[in-house]
Amino acid sequence: MVRARKYVVIKHFEGVPHRDDFKIVEYELPSLEDGEILVKTEWVSVDPYLRIYNKMLPVPFDQFSPQIGLIEESKHSQYPVGTRLVTHKGWCDHSIIDMNAPATNHIEAIYKIPDMNGMSPSLGVGAMGYSGLSAYFGFLEICKPKAGETVVVTAAAGGVGSLVGQIGKIKGCRVIGFAGSDDKVNWLEKDLGFDKAFNYKTVDVKKVLKEAAPNGIDCYFDNVGGEMSSIIISQMNDFGRVSVCGSISVYNEDHVNLPKASVLQLDIVKKQLKIEGFLCNRWEKRYSEAFTDLGQWIKSGKLKYREHVTEGFDNIFDAFIELFHGQNIGKAVVKL
Amino acid sequence: MVRARKYVVIKHFEGVPHRDDFKIVEYELPSLEDGEILVKTEWVSVDPYLRIYNKMLPVPFDQFSPQIGLIEESKHSQYPVGTRLVTHKGWCDHSIIDMNAPATNHIEAIYKIPDMNGMSPSLGVGAMGYSGLSAYFGFLEICKPKAGETVVVTAAAGGVGSLVGQIGKIKGCRVIGFAGSDDKVNWLEKDLGFDKAFNYKTVDVKKVLKEAAPNGIDCYFDNVGGEMSSIIISQMNDFGRVSVCGSISVYNEDHVNLPKASVLQLDIVKKQLKIEGFLCNRWEKRYSEAFTDLGQWIKSGKLKYREHVTEGFDNIFDAFIELFHGQNIGKAVVKL
Repeated sequence: MVRARKYVVIKHFEGVPHRDDFKIVEYELPSLEDGEILVKTEWVSVDPYLRIYNKMLPVPFDQFSPQIGLIEESKHSQYPVGTRLVTHKGWCDHSIIDMNAPATNHIEAIYKIPDMNGMSPSLGVGAMGYSGLSAYFGFLEICKPKAGETVVVTAAAGGVGSLVGQIGKIKGCRVIGFAGSDDKVNWLEKDLGFDKAFNYKTVDVKKVLKEAAPNGIDCYFDNVGGEMSSIIISQMNDFGRVSVCGSISVYNEDHVNLPKASVLQLDIVKKQLKIEGFLCNRWEKRYSEAFTDLGQWIKSGKLKYREHVTEGFDNIFDAFIELFHGQNIGKAVVKL
Repeated sequence: MVRARKYVVIKHFEGVPHRDDFKIVEYELPSLEDGEILVKTEWVSVDPYLRIYNKMLPVPFDQFSPQIGLIEESKHSQYPVGTRLVTHKGWCDHSIIDMNAPATNHIEAIYKIPDMNGMSPSLGVGAMGYSGLSAYFGFLEICKPKAGETVVVTAAAGGVGSLVGQIGKIKGCRVIGFAGSDDKVNWLEKDLGFDKAFNYKTVDVKKVLKEAAPNGIDCYFDNVGGEMSSIIISQMNDFGRVSVCGSISVYNEDHVNLPKASVLQLDIVKKQLKIEGFLCNRWEKRYSEAFTDLGQWIKSGKLKYREHVTEGFDNIFDAFIELFHGQNIGKAVVKL
């Protein structure tokens, strides 16, 4: 018998999530049925976007999120003990998964962790997981950057943004990043090779962009939404492309009465812009392409990553909340 | 010697254009040089979008706009006397064009009017001109409507919107239109076959849309921008497509301090929406495809059009201003 613990959402978030929106439930796992596996969580990913989905499910529900788990027991021949999986089982220390049940949405997607080539399995939810996949496909497939073009990235020191900027450099672009502290700006410019980075809290975004991108912006990888995105989009060139990966500036807002920002349509039509949002599972059949490139770039030192590691099941909520205080650099993960 | 008249913009528009933003200039045309043609204007198109470009040129400048002209004199063998052209020479009664000068932007584009099959040449700036091309390519290429999908059109009784809705019906879609008067709503539902039309001034847009499109919206052809578009976009389905043809709601606004509307990014990312603006000249090499289909649909009665005709060179400004009072139905043209 295995005793398991999990975070259950018992109240929908209002504004910034609170500790008492969750309850930690301890319970006994049943024996495995045919086709099932028992997974022990090793790494849990905490991500701002978890809030978007918070109100889409009726409470109570188990807090899902990407995680890396090790199969401890198996009644499925294709998933033997010792296999590492990426699942969305989220904030729990153990789980049972029926591997014959078809996934009905991306939150149920499960796949074997790619070959890490000696690197930490935690990268499976970071640079070699959804962060990497979002940066790779969301940027390359939607922005379609060409060498010599100018790329802007917001939340540039985050798990996805930091990879996007570096992929921009690999593709020969001029890359400008916005982040929320001077430390992050330093990291982007000194360590990651961004051509220019700014602390959006202390500069006039419109003005510094005009100076840093005098010939306009061709690609914008948008993690924030809101007025900041309106300002950036107003400085784009004809046929500019915007990939919308997140909108962290409004996640904590009331989703029925969203905040307002300067209208985009005038620029969209005048400059023939394309703005597209994505969830990376749409490229699910092509993940191996991304893992090959990302793995090589990381090994060769062209793509650097940073993890912000918190330890312990009991600290998952704190790790989540830290994301909204803007102090983290790189991908936030919790080691169990 | 030909005496010509033209409208010259002498002051940039502030808010709604004023008569004294223009000066009518009368002048003598020189003799033709080799490669030049003398064109007598027959039909002038007035369009809301002319305002977008108003501030992009230094004053004074000749008011451009699509027009149909007849070649009265020619020193170019491929453009003989009697040929009808579509040009952007705009609000003038005669013009000289150097047909060997390469076009440097879409405002200089010139092409021979397509075969009208007995219909009025005025359609060359309407259903068989830029209105038709915008509806045909802007809707079919960007929205990529599939039979059974739900399409929403704003400014649905306008020159472009009225065609988009009907093309939606031809393609087997459910079509919902928004327009600014009960007369327009009647015309859309009774004559053009829209499944549902609403006077946006007298209904709760959010509420009527939820009722008229209970399964959500797949395609949105956006002529207006602003809050109305935010409301419509918030009700779109996964992978919805938005084609941005215009943003009439903000044309009269200060372009530096644009009005604000509810942010779009949360829906864009959650539903993986694609929003794209266009100018139809990007499909220039494929115009003949559109003219073939549009001509057949008009002949067979599947595609109806309506023109709002004003007569006389001196009334061009009035015809233009009427567009912003929202009383016109169909394509506004001026007969010279």
